[in-house]
Amino acid sequence: MTHTARIAVIGAGAWGTALALQAARAGAEVSLWARNPAAMSAGRVMPRLPGYALPPGITVTDAMPRQADLILLACPMQHLRATASTVPPCAPLIACCKGIEQATGLMPLQVLGELFPHSVLGVLSGPNFAHEVAAGLPAAAVLASADRTQARRLADLLTTPAFRLYASDDPTGVQLGGAAKNVIAIAAGATIGAKLGENARAALITRSIAELSRLSHALGGRPETLSGLAGIGDLLLTCTGAASRNYRLGLAIGQGTPAQQAADALEGVAEGRATAPALLQLARQHGVSTPVIATATSLLAGTIDMDDASQLLLSRPVGHEFA
Amino acid sequence: MTHTARIAVIGAGAWGTALALQAARAGAEVSLWARNPAAMSAGRVMPRLPGYALPPGITVTDAMPRQADLILLACPMQHLRATASTVPPCAPLIACCKGIEQATGLMPLQVLGELFPHSVLGVLSGPNFAHEVAAGLPAAAVLASADRTQARRLADLLTTPAFRLYASDDPTGVQLGGAAKNVIAIAAGATIGAKLGENARAALITRSIAELSRLSHALGGRPETLSGLAGIGDLLLTCTGAASRNYRLGLAIGQGTPAQQAADALEGVAEGRATAPALLQLARQHGVSTPVIATATSLLAGTIDMDDASQLLLSRPVGHEFA
Repeated sequence: MTHTARIAVIGAGAWGTALALQAARAGAEVSLWARNPAAMSAGRVMPRLPGYALPPGITVTDAMPRQADLILLACPMQHLRATASTVPPCAPLIACCKGIEQATGLMPLQVLGELFPHSVLGVLSGPNFAHEVAAGLPAAAVLASADRTQARRLADLLTTPAFRLYASDDPTGVQLGGAAKNVIAIAAGATIGAKLGENARAALITRSIAELSRLSHALGGRPETLSGLAGIGDLLLTCTGAASRNYRLGLAIGQGTPAQQAADALEGVAEGRATAPALLQLARQHGVSTPVIATATSLLAGTIDMDDASQLLLSRPVGHEFA
Repeated sequence: MTHTARIAVIGAGAWGTALALQAARAGAEVSLWARNPAAMSAGRVMPRLPGYALPPGITVTDAMPRQADLILLACPMQHLRATASTVPPCAPLIACCKGIEQATGLMPLQVLGELFPHSVLGVLSGPNFAHEVAAGLPAAAVLASADRTQARRLADLLTTPAFRLYASDDPTGVQLGGAAKNVIAIAAGATIGAKLGENARAALITRSIAELSRLSHALGGRPETLSGLAGIGDLLLTCTGAASRNYRLGLAIGQGTPAQQAADALEGVAEGRATAPALLQLARQHGVSTPVIATATSLLAGTIDMDDASQLLLSRPVGHEFA
């Protein structure tokens, strides 16, 4: 492509702002849509990602793009439908949020598919703390679209040496990883909270990859995607540190705090709490056994305690590793 | 099996002692071979794993087993050949060490294959801190043998609800994971030491799984084994905490300490230092590109510095995630 790419980022939260900075680094002309552009400081700093001044190549606006080469939807998952429905279908649309729409049980590209039946759609996911991407530190992620060549072409618009965007033709597996990581983070936190040890956490995370790979396959995705950046890569980031609200919720539950009380005590929402039953339902509809997700769901619902949870997982028969 | 299984554990280090405790929990009659049984305290505590008294079902001895249902070789990798050559081939032999024999570049089962051409051989590996297994905390691992049914039968001798031993018929993939984890831990430590961030570490570990999966395939193993307990599971444990000497070596190198000086400052040996060039040679012999292992090898040899290392990895073309 010889002209300067025009990339519109919808949503000026921490991740949207980081993506706008990255798109500018990749040489694009960037418009960053914010509900309230006036909130930007005179130093061109966005309130949700302080410390990073926007370069001149980024325009902050509350007008939706009319022309673009790529639209990145970086709003929260539960706002995706409402926000996306105001976006004109003038370019390929990439969902940059993770999770499941609570009202419908749908994943990001299913929501977008209803709104934009004729557009090229994709999803971007990976182990990415926004502030590190904003700082220009090295990171990698996956951009998945049904068409492999299309995925590679769109990924190239955002790729730089430090932000490495791998292409994938498995949006189903990528979205599943993004949705499940918050549930697994709760289970991993509970394991550590209950002092079951690091061996137990490593086993739990690894076995959750096996169950998610089976679920991906049943949903028409590829099992190996869960062993990639949007699967184990993102789990590595979410399940080993207290930076994740979901992990902190799990920690508290593991320490014996009732689930509801632990959730009330959090600042903000732990998305995995709503995602767990939705994922479990999806797995059951497809006849896939997902013991980690099932146990996390019961633990979050308060129908079992941590002793029950550990008994449930440890009483299962042990078979071949990849049955 | 109706009779009580007899399990011989060769090597009374921390891991051997933990395995003896686990074998006793699984109901076996256990003999634990120690070079110096007199070192055991009057409280029946082994010096390398203090805090855990041996139950009466474990006999500590310096006599090699004459009859057994299973022999677990829990000596260090570099002592495997010398120790195993004194063991009578009276039962299936399971290598419980990880790494590559420096003098030959061989993996554990290749060494055992030379010594015991007619015995059933297997390998046990996974994310297992010895003291947690000794304490009876939950853990999982893989027991791999060429024959799937044999692997399951041997795994059953050691499995309890809390120590879950999955069967695998891919000893090649399992051994590769065990050998490579120390090399990847050095690279992960260097990433954090150089303040490249958690995104970078997660990307590095995930992409190392991709390159090890390719190498496993080239060696006749299965790619997915590296996404299991002996692959990503063990990496999770080794690459995220300072408990690993290899990770600490990487941290120091990432902070700018010359590799030789960083190695000299360690208490004990970081096995990944010797494993890195051996793995790289293996990969080259099989025509497999392993950028993480290659970069770690050069970094350890002191032929490149951390800036070069990061340039090398970031300047590579970005393609499809699973090419």
